[in-house]
Amino acid sequence: MHVHVNAATSADGKLSSRRREQVRISGPADGERVDALRADCDAVMVGVGTVLADDPHLTIKDDDRRAARRERGVPSNPARVVADSRARAPPDSRVLDDAATTYVLVGDDAPERRRETLRDAGARVVADDGERKGDGPDSSRVVLPHALDALEAEGVESMLIEGGGELLYSAFAAGLVDELSVFVGSVLVGGRDAPTLLDGEGFVGEFPELILESVERIDDGVVLSYTL
Amino acid sequence: MHVHVNAATSADGKLSSRRREQVRISGPADGERVDALRADCDAVMVGVGTVLADDPHLTIKDDDRRAARRERGVPSNPARVVADSRARAPPDSRVLDDAATTYVLVGDDAPERRRETLRDAGARVVADDGERKGDGPDSSRVVLPHALDALEAEGVESMLIEGGGELLYSAFAAGLVDELSVFVGSVLVGGRDAPTLLDGEGFVGEFPELILESVERIDDGVVLSYTL
Repeated sequence: MHVHVNAATSADGKLSSRRREQVRISGPADGERVDALRADCDAVMVGVGTVLADDPHLTIKDDDRRAARRERGVPSNPARVVADSRARAPPDSRVLDDAATTYVLVGDDAPERRRETLRDAGARVVADDGERKGDGPDSSRVVLPHALDALEAEGVESMLIEGGGELLYSAFAAGLVDELSVFVGSVLVGGRDAPTLLDGEGFVGEFPELILESVERIDDGVVLSYTL
Repeated sequence: MHVHVNAATSADGKLSSRRREQVRISGPADGERVDALRADCDAVMVGVGTVLADDPHLTIKDDDRRAARRERGVPSNPARVVADSRARAPPDSRVLDDAATTYVLVGDDAPERRRETLRDAGARVVADDGERKGDGPDSSRVVLPHALDALEAEGVESMLIEGGGELLYSAFAAGLVDELSVFVGSVLVGGRDAPTLLDGEGFVGEFPELILESVERIDDGVVLSYTL
């Protein structure tokens, strides 16, 4: 599966403030860029923290892009995917409405009652039944490589991951990412506890190297596009 | 005083890993750029955390730049400034050698014994005797506006602040910064506990806006230059 990570950060690498409040980082041109990225993918993924904090819809805003998808014989909107190890997504989340198919990736420890609630809300709950030995000590987490294999079996060949920092770290740590694009906004957020582009445990000793493919000024910021 | 902040971050906004180990973020062209910035300033400032983690020298590497300074009638190297509220800088820090004048800015609570150790090591210890009421609850911290006034009285008209994230947040929060330049390296560090460009408490509700003045590709990364 081809995996593209896209996000918008402040000039100091933050996704939002320490209160998890959304900060106006990007502008209309970046919104168009993200809409086009979504339209090119089979699925758009976020972590449950993003669903809880921002309640995003993750659909395509532009009518023409949705029409072009239908002409290509694919649904108007890409599938939505939520990495949600403990099945915490509220059933009235916008991401669970009927605008697109939604997969919720849950971990072994996700209570059956909550899985059922998500199924009732229309989600396709993907349990991770893969062999977990050697993947790390935390059996409650979604094992991303297994989850992505399961999605690929459902026909998802290309995915856009939009955050947050915990999911993005897991995706890079598992070596799943092919491309990264970051809109760096001309604003400062600060805060040692504010969410950053890559949170999680963090790398030590060896650090993933990127190749800077392009630099484009849009809105009042800049888009940095990398391959791995 | 004109204050320029310069730093190098990973593509995810980190200054170093969660273990505070230095990460090779920038290359030789960025090293030259920083050397030229230092040569243009009366003083170069870091926080004590940077001294403890990296033991930087903060001098000008290029002979011609030092010679050009002497021709202008100023010392070969700019003064060095360490924000060190509790006077923790080790007396054998490289920043305390005799290559330049070094000011150590200490807070009210810095023990006199440690201040004396720093003076014996050659530092000019600047105590903050300013009126502190209304500046915040933590009387042990260096109050930067007062400290910068004290340095200005010593003839420091321009300062380059190089980090770390705690000092940089304090400088921006106090509204002291005129320019920001960031080399964004093509590497990922990750980690919710890794130091970022701006740590500290972080802004909430209102966020300092920057004006992106230039975007320049150097080495394998990009320099983003902002004014406030």
